[in-house]
Amino acid sequence: MISFTCDYNEGAHPEILRRLQETNLMQVPGYGEDEFCESAKQNIRSAAGCPDADIFFLVGGTQTNATVISSMLGGCEGAIAADTGHIGVHEAGAVEFTGHKVLTIPQKEGKIEASALSGYLQSFYADESCAHMVQPGMVYISFPTEYGTIYTKRELEDIGRVCRQYSLLLFIDGARLGYGLASRSCDLSLKELAGLCDVFYIGGTKVGALCGEAVVFPKGNAPKHFFTSVKQHGALLAKGRLLGLQFDTLFRDGLYFRISRSAVDAAERLKDVFARNGIELYIDSPTNQQFVLLDEKTRALLDGHVLYEIWGRVPDGRVIARFATSWATTDSAIDELEARLRTGAQSCRP
Amino acid sequence: MISFTCDYNEGAHPEILRRLQETNLMQVPGYGEDEFCESAKQNIRSAAGCPDADIFFLVGGTQTNATVISSMLGGCEGAIAADTGHIGVHEAGAVEFTGHKVLTIPQKEGKIEASALSGYLQSFYADESCAHMVQPGMVYISFPTEYGTIYTKRELEDIGRVCRQYSLLLFIDGARLGYGLASRSCDLSLKELAGLCDVFYIGGTKVGALCGEAVVFPKGNAPKHFFTSVKQHGALLAKGRLLGLQFDTLFRDGLYFRISRSAVDAAERLKDVFARNGIELYIDSPTNQQFVLLDEKTRALLDGHVLYEIWGRVPDGRVIARFATSWATTDSAIDELEARLRTGAQSCRP
Amino acid sequence: MISFTCDYNEGAHPEILRRLQETNLMQVPGYGEDEFCESAKQNIRSAAGCPDADIFFLVGGTQTNATVISSMLGGCEGAIAADTGHIGVHEAGAVEFTGHKVLTIPQKEGKIEASALSGYLQSFYADESCAHMVQPGMVYISFPTEYGTIYTKRELEDIGRVCRQYSLLLFIDGARLGYGLASRSCDLSLKELAGLCDVFYIGGTKVGALCGEAVVFPKGNAPKHFFTSVKQHGALLAKGRLLGLQFDTLFRDGLYFRISRSAVDAAERLKDVFARNGIELYIDSPTNQQFVLLDEKTRALLDGHVLYEIWGRVPDGRVIARFATSWATTDSAIDELEARLRTGAQSCRP
Amino acid sequence: MISFTCDYNEGAHPEILRRLQETNLMQVPGYGEDEFCESAKQNIRSAAGCPDADIFFLVGGTQTNATVISSMLGGCEGAIAADTGHIGVHEAGAVEFTGHKVLTIPQKEGKIEASALSGYLQSFYADESCAHMVQPGMVYISFPTEYGTIYTKRELEDIGRVCRQYSLLLFIDGARLGYGLASRSCDLSLKELAGLCDVFYIGGTKVGALCGEAVVFPKGNAPKHFFTSVKQHGALLAKGRLLGLQFDTLFRDGLYFRISRSAVDAAERLKDVFARNGIELYIDSPTNQQFVLLDEKTRALLDGHVLYEIWGRVPDGRVIARFATSWATTDSAIDELEARLRTGAQSCRP
Repeated sequence: MISFTCDYNEGAHPEILRRLQETNLMQVPGYGEDEFCESAKQNIRSAAGCPDADIFFLVGGTQTNATVISSMLGGCEGAIAADTGHIGVHEAGAVEFTGHKVLTIPQKEGKIEASALSGYLQSFYADESCAHMVQPGMVYISFPTEYGTIYTKRELEDIGRVCRQYSLLLFIDGARLGYGLASRSCDLSLKELAGLCDVFYIGGTKVGALCGEAVVFPKGNAPKHFFTSVKQHGALLAKGRLLGLQFDTLFRDGLYFRISRSAVDAAERLKDVFARNGIELYIDSPTNQQFVLLDEKTRALLDGHVLYEIWGRVPDGRVIARFATSWATTDSAIDELEARLRTGAQSCRP
Repeated sequence: MISFTCDYNEGAHPEILRRLQETNLMQVPGYGEDEFCESAKQNIRSAAGCPDADIFFLVGGTQTNATVISSMLGGCEGAIAADTGHIGVHEAGAVEFTGHKVLTIPQKEGKIEASALSGYLQSFYADESCAHMVQPGMVYISFPTEYGTIYTKRELEDIGRVCRQYSLLLFIDGARLGYGLASRSCDLSLKELAGLCDVFYIGGTKVGALCGEAVVFPKGNAPKHFFTSVKQHGALLAKGRLLGLQFDTLFRDGLYFRISRSAVDAAERLKDVFARNGIELYIDSPTNQQFVLLDEKTRALLDGHVLYEIWGRVPDGRVIARFATSWATTDSAIDELEARLRTGAQSCRP
Repeated sequence: MISFTCDYNEGAHPEILRRLQETNLMQVPGYGEDEFCESAKQNIRSAAGCPDADIFFLVGGTQTNATVISSMLGGCEGAIAADTGHIGVHEAGAVEFTGHKVLTIPQKEGKIEASALSGYLQSFYADESCAHMVQPGMVYISFPTEYGTIYTKRELEDIGRVCRQYSLLLFIDGARLGYGLASRSCDLSLKELAGLCDVFYIGGTKVGALCGEAVVFPKGNAPKHFFTSVKQHGALLAKGRLLGLQFDTLFRDGLYFRISRSAVDAAERLKDVFARNGIELYIDSPTNQQFVLLDEKTRALLDGHVLYEIWGRVPDGRVIARFATSWATTDSAIDELEARLRTGAQSCRP
Repeated sequence: MISFTCDYNEGAHPEILRRLQETNLMQVPGYGEDEFCESAKQNIRSAAGCPDADIFFLVGGTQTNATVISSMLGGCEGAIAADTGHIGVHEAGAVEFTGHKVLTIPQKEGKIEASALSGYLQSFYADESCAHMVQPGMVYISFPTEYGTIYTKRELEDIGRVCRQYSLLLFIDGARLGYGLASRSCDLSLKELAGLCDVFYIGGTKVGALCGEAVVFPKGNAPKHFFTSVKQHGALLAKGRLLGLQFDTLFRDGLYFRISRSAVDAAERLKDVFARNGIELYIDSPTNQQFVLLDEKTRALLDGHVLYEIWGRVPDGRVIARFATSWATTDSAIDELEARLRTGAQSCRP
């Protein structure tokens, strides 16, 4: 049985495990004050072109979103997100649990459009009763989005312009950042992305690490007491070395980008397999997540051999299925998927 | 330079790293639904003698305390803790951040006494305005305490009796549980401890794991939707295998207890070293944390050679210093400490 | 200048002021333990046909919603509401501030349909990742709704059936309850309404009181420590007599229903005026709030003479205007409105 | 039966009721945008000597404390208060419910000393682990305190100096502000008090109003979106006129100060009565609350005739009893109290 259900089905990239082993008995301070964290921060600052950045390592995505959002918003401010945004759907209300509302606006293939954002804000401030409503304080976008799509540089610039016009912060959830930047369709670099927002995070969990997300405040603009906020949110790892060493490994010689690229290449191969076998894309994603429409017959072929995730259903009855690749996806796994799909084609022959 | 500053200065027990390596490429589901978590749960249920226990793996102690406490308390209930209790002091207000007050009562060497608890509750309910006050909902104790001390079986039974009398839950923070159970002074087993409380957790981070705490509801009494609460608190690890595999390793053949015992043995050796060198104990701790009083001369001897943590100061000017041992503490480290202390004795000779 | 902007433009019904005066120097206990509160509770229990009801008097609607919802929901549960529901729109995120998400579903003229609710819940529980999402815990409806519409008895029964099927609480926000029950279209009594939900509140602020909302748990089913929760939410009035006396006055001889009826009658007169003057209804509301579409010309006629509230705009450019009546609305005010509208008709004549 | 249990046993000062009556049918906007609020603000700005002050009217003390504190503190900051401070004891954890810890320091007769505050802060910042603790963000004091005592101008200046040194806000809870300023021992004016803090509130509920507290940001320094925060905390009254008119009445010709003075005079008379009748003061309070020690015999004399509040018990068994006066306390009530006490003296004679 092979699994394409998500990009965290395996453990960590072998180089990470090797270094964990190698450094295991070194005695270092806790809570991120170790040399691995320090080195990782320098590597990230360099890769992101922001030498003054404040950087913090947290453990997982939901806790990162809740910590960043609640630390940066004022008391009665909310975060604007696409109605498919992860914070509003699959994080069990973690943001609301910190007291802040997620304000949703419509999306296209997971993306917010600057014009929709601007329209929302115009209506909001035109409403005489807007002082009785949650105040917009931040725009949250994911890059890539929950549907694997990515923003162009121009689109991000436009969103950034609206944010500045309305004094909103721009936060980019980069749980799968590597896969976005490594996409063949991506027209912006990590440095450019860092320059376009107020805060973003670099996902480790879904890009080769056992766990870990690196929060970057590009202009050294971490909110006051952010370290304490991380602790308060239960997001401070005692053995911070585990996070530091992983990000140090991922960012010291471009490993993060190489493994992201390899996952995107695998996804492109998947796309070819789907095309060759008459399987329709639900969304044309340029990153490591592929969304296709599967009919019952195809599902039966895969049953017991290939795992994937079901995201919903379209009116004609087909399911929306997600296939995710990662640094660990092998050619042979993709071959096996294609072989399964072809058994269907053959069995149709007389 | 050797460090006794805490029990999380090193990485993980080598057997854990070995198994991480061994299982790295296995594809398993996320969020704790993997086979390692399942096996770890069975091993813990067996070790704790509670076959019906609900068990959840979280990442760190502060997040575990906040998640457990806020999930089990009613809206206007608080948790009673010793005024030295970790939740009230060093967790950056994580419990209050979830909306619940920590109600403090006096302690002796880090321990709550049943009589003090009972007195507090009697006064509370005798107060005509008690409906205007935070309602007691739970008693939180740490085992061992922040001062390395442990409760006797009798003391826990007495506290449990007061809890039942006042319909309070009893929660045992076992961040260092192994060191308590492995103490030569401990007169209760894990099974007995599990039988005496409503919920407890088994600390991994400080007892040989890279991270991880196992929350145990011994009677299958997890609050409704607890899995979702864990997610909501940002405490659900995507690659749950990391936690499952560690606890499976620690609990499948008694490793947890063996390494705890070895740390306690090292602490007893430390105690002997202190005694032989005229260093006074601040508290007589039977576990892996030792608290001693160091004068300026002694501190100068250790300076640059031995690290420890400063916890405060007594009126005569000496500092309260904590020395912690762990599974990784070596005999040679203790020898080196003694050698440093002896240089002082020698230098006094004419 | 006359105002129809809302139903709280005036002070209190004169009988309330008279009794405030009359009882002013009586010395009574604070925090709702006075004889007026007691008498008011008895009168409400009797009017609502629930002799065992727990009743609490709070000051305003938003605080009542937040207190009731957060006290009754479990930690990771949310309240389902129409996407026009007051709690999700005009309460500044007060519910989210208590940590709970408002889960919105589509509405028709402000009302939730049982089938839409049921469909939402079916989809929710069919979603494999539903444990990662906010759990439905309660259905919140307003009676009358924010658009002045009311549920039929049958509709409420159907919603109640879905609630029971999915173990959800049903909470009715009755900020304008009187106007709903007094509507000519209303086919259910206060007793029937009380029997159909788990908790509701009787609005005073918008129905003749200076302030005050009476929360009713019809089956004596107030959550544990609810009094303390009220205090914790800052919703406990020190001089509870102010609330008790007002509700006692409103409910001791049917005043609440009489003044509600008089407001609804005034609204019906308004409707006639609009019809006679060619002003289109936006929604056909059977209660004290009337929503009409005003073009620029009509708005110019009213300008400087009649105040109303603007709720939005339809595509043809006309504004949606709300006209609210209350116990204090006079015939002469309505006459004056009509006179203004007629000046327009006259000015059009050649 | 006469009652001295609290200063909110009666309704409102008659002048307030008179004006409520007089203005009842005026149509004014809701939510504090009415002319009474505007006039009240001007009167308060003038009385407090701060022409640029931002002023908001809230309903009650607990909600005011929670709203002000949570709106002004950063995410992981707490409020320092005396361990007898109202926010830490009798507000049902309302501050913690907003996510902020109350940090307590010892007090003397309800008052914080600048030296104790300074010592606390020195220790806090000297602690190596202070980044893991709740950060001090504000000092909360009550004037008068919960024990009726008041700070001298010098004491407030000293506290203010420590606050500035450590960048802490200073918040004065003036639930009984009038009684403090009217005290014969008070050496500072409202203007001076306003100049010494960042925010304070003027209590109405306990000083002649039916309800209402006026929050004053003396330098126009209200936090961003404070109006929305008030709404979010459920503290925004729809019929804001009720609050505006009351404060307008209290502050337009010095009524607030006159009735406060009259209550303090009554308290001084009470003190004389206690002295003449051999009843020991527990605390020598210069304001409207008097704390005395009552033995069983005295309590028996008062039983059934005079009500007071019990605050605790001293070791010799006597209870600490609070007697509060207000604008409504009559000479005859005090005479009656003395008459009761004398029956005891007489009955002792042979």
